[in-house]
Amino acid sequence: LQSGTLKQVKHSLRVLTPVQLARVIESSPPHTRSVIWELIGKSARTELIEELPEDIQSFYLAQMNTEDLVELTETLETDDIVDILQNLPDQITQQVLEAMSDQDRERVTAVLAYPENTAGGLTNTDTITVRPKFTLDVVLRYLRRHNELPPSTDSLIVVNKKDMYLGLLPLATLLTKPGDTTVREVMVTDANPISADLDESDVAKLFEQNDWVSAPVVDEQGKLIGRITIDDVVDVIRETADHSFMGAAGLDEEEDTFATTARTTPRRALWLGINLITALLASSVINLFQDTIDKVVALAVLMPIVASMGGVAGSQTLTVVIRGMALGHISRNNLGWLMSREVRVGIINGLLWALVMAGIAGLWFGDWRISFIIAAAMIINLITAALAGALLPIGLKAMRIDPALAGGVTLTTITDVVGFFAFLGLATYFYA
Amino acid sequence: LQSGTLKQVKHSLRVLTPVQLARVIESSPPHTRSVIWELIGKSARTELIEELPEDIQSFYLAQMNTEDLVELTETLETDDIVDILQNLPDQITQQVLEAMSDQDRERVTAVLAYPENTAGGLTNTDTITVRPKFTLDVVLRYLRRHNELPPSTDSLIVVNKKDMYLGLLPLATLLTKPGDTTVREVMVTDANPISADLDESDVAKLFEQNDWVSAPVVDEQGKLIGRITIDDVVDVIRETADHSFMGAAGLDEEEDTFATTARTTPRRALWLGINLITALLASSVINLFQDTIDKVVALAVLMPIVASMGGVAGSQTLTVVIRGMALGHISRNNLGWLMSREVRVGIINGLLWALVMAGIAGLWFGDWRISFIIAAAMIINLITAALAGALLPIGLKAMRIDPALAGGVTLTTITDVVGFFAFLGLATYFYA
Repeated sequence: LQSGTLKQVKHSLRVLTPVQLARVIESSPPHTRSVIWELIGKSARTELIEELPEDIQSFYLAQMNTEDLVELTETLETDDIVDILQNLPDQITQQVLEAMSDQDRERVTAVLAYPENTAGGLTNTDTITVRPKFTLDVVLRYLRRHNELPPSTDSLIVVNKKDMYLGLLPLATLLTKPGDTTVREVMVTDANPISADLDESDVAKLFEQNDWVSAPVVDEQGKLIGRITIDDVVDVIRETADHSFMGAAGLDEEEDTFATTARTTPRRALWLGINLITALLASSVINLFQDTIDKVVALAVLMPIVASMGGVAGSQTLTVVIRGMALGHISRNNLGWLMSREVRVGIINGLLWALVMAGIAGLWFGDWRISFIIAAAMIINLITAALAGALLPIGLKAMRIDPALAGGVTLTTITDVVGFFAFLGLATYFYA
Repeated sequence: LQSGTLKQVKHSLRVLTPVQLARVIESSPPHTRSVIWELIGKSARTELIEELPEDIQSFYLAQMNTEDLVELTETLETDDIVDILQNLPDQITQQVLEAMSDQDRERVTAVLAYPENTAGGLTNTDTITVRPKFTLDVVLRYLRRHNELPPSTDSLIVVNKKDMYLGLLPLATLLTKPGDTTVREVMVTDANPISADLDESDVAKLFEQNDWVSAPVVDEQGKLIGRITIDDVVDVIRETADHSFMGAAGLDEEEDTFATTARTTPRRALWLGINLITALLASSVINLFQDTIDKVVALAVLMPIVASMGGVAGSQTLTVVIRGMALGHISRNNLGWLMSREVRVGIINGLLWALVMAGIAGLWFGDWRISFIIAAAMIINLITAALAGALLPIGLKAMRIDPALAGGVTLTTITDVVGFFAFLGLATYFYA
């Protein structure tokens, strides 16, 4: 980008699709972003905005006036409008809603009523519904009157006069069954519609398990609200998986790779501060044993090994359990088995590496007491790590703390404290 | 499950769909799994197997004879058959292939030719193709002759006499445009077909960006091989995201939550062994400064803090860069900016927490020399962490080592070694 003249750049930007343009913006440092934003026209900006990830999107939305925002919402699907409105200050949301047509406002308000992370919040209201009494030929003629179908339409939704959900009419059925069949005869009724208050992660599981492309959403009374399409579910799946990965480093799954220093620093600082407190806790344990270390300085050399091995073993258990919980594998019934397996693995691997480490320590310092001490401490810490790794995510979840975020820090605090305490405590006993 | 009699259990298993049954198996310890496997009939097993995750699936496949395997493949889609065959010993794969019908064998062999992690490996050969010269009415009559369409069919594929890809005919177009229009007039030609050798992660990006439900796959000559459907892409997205999360703990993304102790222990042991080597490296650095620690034992108390803060800061940078690479955000053009931002963030947060820590250390040990030493060491280590976190994934990738797997261990080795060396080295200088 730097090499061309502005005119050349402007020209090459013009041939990009909104999706490609969004990729360029995502992959550009802040300065390049503002240059591109200035160069592309106003209409390109509108198309671009809906393709941007949330973090960058909200930055540009904050700069737009209400008039532009209203114009922007006119081209979007209901759930995308709702996503955008939820990122705006309440006052501006109200202004945008007031400026909409009555029909649009009604649709958007219906979806806005549901929390962002539920099925309701993912719902598109643009559906094509049919009545059960019609024949397929009538439905085909009815569709011909449309210029196009809403994106990802793989089924029409069958409802009664009161808009209550009855079943689905897949396009494939419509195309392969005889034209004089009625909708009622061929509609699919074996899949339950999604309830609007279902959690979005459960929605994703249903889509994954049943290979759905779209699914109808109903309210408590069974009345059709709209449908959820696979493209929005894919975003949920990606975000849920990223959440575990990013959360372990105290980062948000929507994190903008090229956020400015000013935006990045405070977020990271908080996480480092939390870690400093836990590190001080571990240090205060070491502090208890100053006299012993003063006597046998080799202890200072070896003590990080015990803590580190516990941290690694614990994070393996923690990772398996957090993922198992995310996939819905873990319940009260099987937790006992899982914990006992983790403890068995901890004991076996603890014995294995404790033996190896005992050999190394003995040869290194020519002192077989230290071999015994480090081996015993390692076994204690690996069993602790197994128990902590399995119980922490469940305990944290029960306390409504996000295990993906807090699990890792809490775990290493435990394995550091127990590791230092076991190693230095045993040493104090044997060298006293 | 334990509470009911076998007969009751058998009855309740019978009402479950294969997908639900697969979920029960996934969420059960090994013993419960074998009880269920014995209780359900042979036909239920066949349906169940394709719904199971790879790790568990291969366990059951290994127990089946060739005859059952052939029967199993008869009900599956091409790409699912290929997935299964790739998990079998070569000899058995050959036997299964020989027992297939000629047409099936030809299809499966075509897909087997492509590596598992490319577009070719995700391809289903069951497509409906049409010629450009036909009118939509002719196409509609042609479809009526089918009993159903292949799953996730949202478009028919337009090809010429030599099976060369020409374009797509979305079902929505077929349903909304006049019947006397020809396919050529309304077919969509602006989306390029997917090349069979494209990496599966790039396939996933294309689907995500374009909100596709299915996409055609062609070989080097542009000849149609088949199509990729969103349900398989969702699996790729889930696995790619899980890979980063699981890989950081040395685990496989397909890891079975309820694998036996015998299966789990060796995999974990290896990772602990690698970590032991890196921990010994850090210890050997501490070993260099035994005399200094002997003189000032407070150093042993504080030294883990410097290493730990470096590890946390580095893992934040590493996480952002690994995710940025996975999303295709990072290139040679913007790496410079990203590294300079990370270093800026490292300097600012380093200064902040170094100051806090200097105050704490000074008050704790009543020695302001140690305050200066820990502050300087922390700043050095946080800048090192920023550089290492940004450069490591790129360097590892260039060496064809998976950053998701090796990044974390390598990073903490660096921050431990640099942290101990800076802190104890400075201390040796000032207390000498």
